[in-house]
Amino acid sequence: MVQVTPLLLILGMVLVAPGYSAKKCVLTGRWMNELGSNMTIMPVNGKGEFWGFYHTAVTATTNKIQVSLLRGSQHRPNQQRHPTFGFTVKWSFSDSVTVFTGQCFVDEKGNEILKTMWLLRSHVDNIKDDWKATRVGTNVFTRLRPRQECSWEQGDSQASDDDDDSASCSFCSADCCFQ
Amino acid sequence: MVQVTPLLLILGMVLVAPGYSAKKCVLTGRWMNELGSNMTIMPVNGKGEFWGFYHTAVTATTNKIQVSLLRGSQHRPNQQRHPTFGFTVKWSFSDSVTVFTGQCFVDEKGNEILKTMWLLRSHVDNIKDDWKATRVGTNVFTRLRPRQECSWEQGDSQASDDDDDSASCSFCSADCCFQ
Amino acid sequence: MVQVTPLLLILGMVLVAPGYSAKKCVLTGRWMNELGSNMTIMPVNGKGEFWGFYHTAVTATTNKIQVSLLRGSQHRPNQQRHPTFGFTVKWSFSDSVTVFTGQCFVDEKGNEILKTMWLLRSHVDNIKDDWKATRVGTNVFTRLRPRQECSWEQGDSQASDDDDDSASCSFCSADCCFQ
Amino acid sequence: MVQVTPLLLILGMVLVAPGYSAKKCVLTGRWMNELGSNMTIMPVNGKGEFWGFYHTAVTATTNKIQVSLLRGSQHRPNQQRHPTFGFTVKWSFSDSVTVFTGQCFVDEKGNEILKTMWLLRSHVDNIKDDWKATRVGTNVFTRLRPRQECSWEQGDSQASDDDDDSASCSFCSADCCFQ
Repeated sequence: MVQVTPLLLILGMVLVAPGYSAKKCVLTGRWMNELGSNMTIMPVNGKGEFWGFYHTAVTATTNKIQVSLLRGSQHRPNQQRHPTFGFTVKWSFSDSVTVFTGQCFVDEKGNEILKTMWLLRSHVDNIKDDWKATRVGTNVFTRLRPRQECSWEQGDSQASDDDDDSASCSFCSADCCFQ
Repeated sequence: MVQVTPLLLILGMVLVAPGYSAKKCVLTGRWMNELGSNMTIMPVNGKGEFWGFYHTAVTATTNKIQVSLLRGSQHRPNQQRHPTFGFTVKWSFSDSVTVFTGQCFVDEKGNEILKTMWLLRSHVDNIKDDWKATRVGTNVFTRLRPRQECSWEQGDSQASDDDDDSASCSFCSADCCFQ
Repeated sequence: MVQVTPLLLILGMVLVAPGYSAKKCVLTGRWMNELGSNMTIMPVNGKGEFWGFYHTAVTATTNKIQVSLLRGSQHRPNQQRHPTFGFTVKWSFSDSVTVFTGQCFVDEKGNEILKTMWLLRSHVDNIKDDWKATRVGTNVFTRLRPRQECSWEQGDSQASDDDDDSASCSFCSADCCFQ
Repeated sequence: MVQVTPLLLILGMVLVAPGYSAKKCVLTGRWMNELGSNMTIMPVNGKGEFWGFYHTAVTATTNKIQVSLLRGSQHRPNQQRHPTFGFTVKWSFSDSVTVFTGQCFVDEKGNEILKTMWLLRSHVDNIKDDWKATRVGTNVFTRLRPRQECSWEQGDSQASDDDDDSASCSFCSADCCFQ
């Protein structure tokens, strides 16, 4: 027994270390924030440029929400572990624009998190109303992953082997499963 | 003489009116803000997407300033007179990112003005410092135009015919001449 | 015994219901945010004015943190259930100032929550540096309550009857116990 | 002639130096911003605390504008030349609150200027709408002074001796005269 413990420890380090300690945050993938809005960022190119889709769960207008395009860039995708980034969402269902900026962090459990702040710019008809056209706020995004990935990761303790349950869960973030 | 004046007036209205009253603000071109920072926005495509160069006059770091790339989008370039827009500047001389959002207005004299707000996101090493990573502010940009254009526009009263003077003025905005 | 239970239930409803369903949020008391900063707001007067103490857990300077004074006001303390408010913290250990503004909400469980945004203004020596002097962010505060109060409220399921444990818990918020 | 010049220079320094080079910015007095909003700040006490009146020229609501109370504090009124400050305006004609923070500068001509940023918090009925409740912006205030004061200061070149003109000018800032 005494001999087995260090072996397990080393084995554990070999398996875990590459995944966690050196894990770099890349924006590509599917993300959800605390309001239920989600976005899909397409593969980031070598210059750090990307585009994708933003599906907001909330709106400051009365218009019907539609998926909108986002475009932006991040710092040095291959060099930085916790890159800063920025992107613009041009709302397809209104004349407004939102810009997000933030930094991608990997927490101690290896979960990625996007800490962002945003400015929502509304269209005004007259420059005299410019003063009231900008809202400000924060959003925290966690990564959504395909069901099979997080079932594997969460293990038996959290994920059910029940086929009915798994079938109804399409994506999972660090904390929960989305249908 | 009496007959010529109304004719000139009508001719002037025909030439000037389409330029001013229906003038649409397009972001393409060269702009300068109140801090002396300037940017060049390349032709905006049909989807409202654009890229360009940002040359800041100020920095929150001690690094040497270098020209940086900007990418963004504006609403409906052919439909809106005063479109909202957003863009990201990935600073080439630091790990920071700035996002700008605003609206392009045409004032009563036909001068274009970009009223913007921005968030400057600094890179932090630890998520515990995330709270202090975002600065906020405003910038107002006016269009820079080649010398010959504004000499023509400003007329004799403001522009000098003195060759030495004109030669030293490379760009002009609504208010002044930049060398 | 059978007869006592409904009586206790009704008594409980009478006592608890007015507290929750019509509960008005007043700022007076002790609050803690997600960064571990806490503040004590003294009794709000009839005009909605208040003062208190702010003990930040974080600083953008290298100075030793000290308790600082706060002053502000809230809307109609006796009329609104979810009043908006604002206050200024003049940092005693630096030349900076922070202003907070937000709204006090009572959630469905009767827990009070302060959703705030803030601007942190640093002192700059020259007006040319004014552009970079303002940081922006959010904070969420929950109420800290004396130990005996939350032991009573949380009941047996969450609070331990172990005397040693209770003794080490001085304040509790909606979620946890602070020592 | 040669002897007179240094004398005039010294005389000028004696007269100008106390007024300009050592001028400390104190918030007490009447101020106006670029939107035409004005505020009166009552004498700042020894702790840097103050209150006053804010008369906004603009509103994000449809309510009739009324004078509102402001309360705040500034850093070390007797020690700092360019103190930072913050204050809260509780709007008397709506459920909103605005917090301002900024710094008072004295420019090279001895004119005081308040560079501020603000957050305007609107009341929302449900915590789900909290995300869109905060607007952000900037304001620049210059001091309004009684007519006789600025007539004296501006001298003959700018101020007219014409009685009709002076009579119609009640307050003046660095740039202009308000009626």
